[in-house]
Amino acid sequence: MSTPSPFLYSILILIVSFLCQASAIQLNGARYLGNFWSLSTTLSLRAPKYQYETKYFQQKLDHFSFADLPSFSQRYLINTQHWEGPSHSAPIFLYCGNEGDIEWFAANTGFVWEIAPRFGAMVIFPEHRYYGESMPYGSKEEAYKNATTLSYLTAEQALADYAVLITEIKRNLSAQACPVVLFGGSYGGMLAAWMRLKYPHISIGALASSAPVLQFEDLVPPETFYSIVSDGFRRESMSCFNTIKESWDVINKVGQINGGLAQLTKTFHICRELESVESLSNWLESAYSYLAMVNYPYSTDFLMPLPGSPIKEVCRKIDSLPDGASVLQRIFEGISIYYNYTGKVDCFDLNDDPHGMSGWDWQACTEMIMPMASNRTTSMFPEFYYDPKSNEEQCLKDFHVKPRPTWITTEFGGHAFKSALKAFGSNIIFSNGLLDPWSGGSVLEDVSETIVALTTKKGAHHLDLRAATAEDPDWLLDQRSSEIKLIRGWLDEHYDKKKAISAYR
Amino acid sequence: MSTPSPFLYSILILIVSFLCQASAIQLNGARYLGNFWSLSTTLSLRAPKYQYETKYFQQKLDHFSFADLPSFSQRYLINTQHWEGPSHSAPIFLYCGNEGDIEWFAANTGFVWEIAPRFGAMVIFPEHRYYGESMPYGSKEEAYKNATTLSYLTAEQALADYAVLITEIKRNLSAQACPVVLFGGSYGGMLAAWMRLKYPHISIGALASSAPVLQFEDLVPPETFYSIVSDGFRRESMSCFNTIKESWDVINKVGQINGGLAQLTKTFHICRELESVESLSNWLESAYSYLAMVNYPYSTDFLMPLPGSPIKEVCRKIDSLPDGASVLQRIFEGISIYYNYTGKVDCFDLNDDPHGMSGWDWQACTEMIMPMASNRTTSMFPEFYYDPKSNEEQCLKDFHVKPRPTWITTEFGGHAFKSALKAFGSNIIFSNGLLDPWSGGSVLEDVSETIVALTTKKGAHHLDLRAATAEDPDWLLDQRSSEIKLIRGWLDEHYDKKKAISAYR
Repeated sequence: MSTPSPFLYSILILIVSFLCQASAIQLNGARYLGNFWSLSTTLSLRAPKYQYETKYFQQKLDHFSFADLPSFSQRYLINTQHWEGPSHSAPIFLYCGNEGDIEWFAANTGFVWEIAPRFGAMVIFPEHRYYGESMPYGSKEEAYKNATTLSYLTAEQALADYAVLITEIKRNLSAQACPVVLFGGSYGGMLAAWMRLKYPHISIGALASSAPVLQFEDLVPPETFYSIVSDGFRRESMSCFNTIKESWDVINKVGQINGGLAQLTKTFHICRELESVESLSNWLESAYSYLAMVNYPYSTDFLMPLPGSPIKEVCRKIDSLPDGASVLQRIFEGISIYYNYTGKVDCFDLNDDPHGMSGWDWQACTEMIMPMASNRTTSMFPEFYYDPKSNEEQCLKDFHVKPRPTWITTEFGGHAFKSALKAFGSNIIFSNGLLDPWSGGSVLEDVSETIVALTTKKGAHHLDLRAATAEDPDWLLDQRSSEIKLIRGWLDEHYDKKKAISAYR
Repeated sequence: MSTPSPFLYSILILIVSFLCQASAIQLNGARYLGNFWSLSTTLSLRAPKYQYETKYFQQKLDHFSFADLPSFSQRYLINTQHWEGPSHSAPIFLYCGNEGDIEWFAANTGFVWEIAPRFGAMVIFPEHRYYGESMPYGSKEEAYKNATTLSYLTAEQALADYAVLITEIKRNLSAQACPVVLFGGSYGGMLAAWMRLKYPHISIGALASSAPVLQFEDLVPPETFYSIVSDGFRRESMSCFNTIKESWDVINKVGQINGGLAQLTKTFHICRELESVESLSNWLESAYSYLAMVNYPYSTDFLMPLPGSPIKEVCRKIDSLPDGASVLQRIFEGISIYYNYTGKVDCFDLNDDPHGMSGWDWQACTEMIMPMASNRTTSMFPEFYYDPKSNEEQCLKDFHVKPRPTWITTEFGGHAFKSALKAFGSNIIFSNGLLDPWSGGSVLEDVSETIVALTTKKGAHHLDLRAATAEDPDWLLDQRSSEIKLIRGWLDEHYDKKKAISAYR
């Protein structure tokens, strides 16, 4: 395993309307947010800037039973170009792949690639099972066929995949003594933090960016997510907030009149005529939520091509229409900032696999039960409560599977998560941008001397993991600089301990 | 859940020759020790001295997948008689059931029952899946039918069972704030230590007695176990050691002559004529190993009715025969101390399910791959090497399953187990008696201030967990006293922290 092959990437995959998948599913008054990104099938793969080899590793489908199941091929990306090797016990940076194509995460996690050389570190991006090319049963079609084939799509299995993979890679490279540092964003950040908790022997520390590890059961109020989304709009403009808040009733009213759905279809430039008001509402809700997540200070096209501070732009649009403009016109113009910033989309396709068997939808119906609600006082969204029963009914209907709402807290710690981490853990950074609606379910205060929270007021969803740009504000540079210092500290401590041990011997 | 019903136990199950199951299986020159006890089917249940309610809890068969599998009923024993309840945040003592009927472990773990009242503690003994009454698929016959039905018999599933059970019991009793202390002996001790590592939020500490957590891969030399067994005999008498060492060749020579097997059958009072020399050798080897494990200072009948310091008695017998006595006569007389101390057995049945699908045999062929070997210099046993290939072949033949020899070290930590514990763990007692051959695979030195080793020179296999007796030597009283102090310390620290938190609030 020498330097990576100089494989040149020149493919530019253009994406249109990939976010039209229904990601927030209305469930008779209760909803669950279906996905962090809803990006499992269609990915914004820009020309990758980073060099790596693509390799494959045979994994057990069920690490925790001996059922006679077919193994599957897990893809991972690896770069050893800057690695200083086993003789220096040089570090290994492992990104815990989350719910999507690993090349897309690799392309959007510049921080890891950029800091690796200064640490002399190897970089590995393993793909999460059931995403990208890492499909059990040979193909996505087979893997997603039914609840039986999907049943091994769980976080614990993914963690075991990473543990087995890194152990085997280290063995093959005689790199057993090389310390592993974990990275992850969003669900990947949860995996990184959980891996530190569950496999302390595998890594020496984890940077868990925007990881809502507390977004389960009653650990945080279920209104948290939508309240933070709403705050993002309220902060920009009260009238913008009010227009959005008002819009749901308007949409409902129009939807109920004769020809109302046709009218909404036309107003919002939907390709195929709306079958329900809910599909439109969900489409709008998703956009607001994603806007809050990617409310980055400069223009990006992680999810969509967007201007910097996109909520500000949306609200500017909503507010700037002349006095006579209707609520719906304002909403359409605003939302177009998100769905059509390039101006190239003629009409929007809402029915792109709305209840499709996309991986996160399965995970959200099994383990990842994150209660969501919206209350009248803090939210600009329609009021709704979290209803476990209707959630269960919907999951039984969609996937023939019964959710286990208390499993994640049992497996990884619920109310005792932080105290267990404090007593038992070390070397985790929980980084969050407070604009990010997922930050409300993460760890925002230091848990101990070595389990620290790095928050930025103006940051959004794992902004710190993105590549450096010329527009990076000072507070982002500071955050990344703190992260580098902390990681350096973990490594120094690790090497000091090893020296002490070998001196003792 | 009030005080336990005054269910009176008066059944005395008499056991004869239950240890004749082949537990050390010869594998073309390599062997693995099949079981800690080989007691999964036939148990020495004395009249239980302890009161408890017997309850059942529905468990998922696979916690880590969503495969549509039948749930099963896990048995657990519970006593709340001395529990001071949620209002006092009174502790819960949880024994991690191991590979056998839980009533048998409850009857032989007097320490937990005896100290519970002084802590105002609840006592729970959950049964390990696939043992006793806790059978998936409705019956032992169905559960042990084949590799598919057995496939969920793993340590990780058992740990998840305990985590789910205790979380649910605490919820039902509004006892979420009550700290849990784990106990376990032998494989149960491994489970207790691993549970502390993997589920730090579930318990505040663990007493892991005689837990060979390092008996995997190359963490300790494979000769360790049989060397310690041999030391036990050498220590008593060099001539006894030499007679046993000499005996294997004698047995082989006699076995090879015409009518030799019949002669051996007669000499050793075997009920049915021997089919091979190996079956006799295995039977003898098992006895020596078990003698080392239960080399307790006073008479017990945990495994068999035995005198105190039984190895001393065996060697006395072997050495005391008149000068003309043959090696085989000496061995027979010696071994009879173990297999027939009461003198009531007329003949021995070696073929009692020699390759039966007993639970531990499955575990030893899947995850619990503990390499064993015997070398000429330190061992009184025939020389043999650990051969992973022949082990794998045998497991494929016996169970149609392929062992995963590197899985336990990947899942729970291999060479990094102790350093991970040191950095990440707290509050574990590894107690060991150095006469116990399993002690060589356990933790015999303090790992940190709170992860401590308590060893006794003259102790055997989890002697500390047994009920107090009038004959307990001082060093045993000291060991138990240290354990009580340490547990008290964990609880005090836990309550102090809680007080500090509530004062802060």
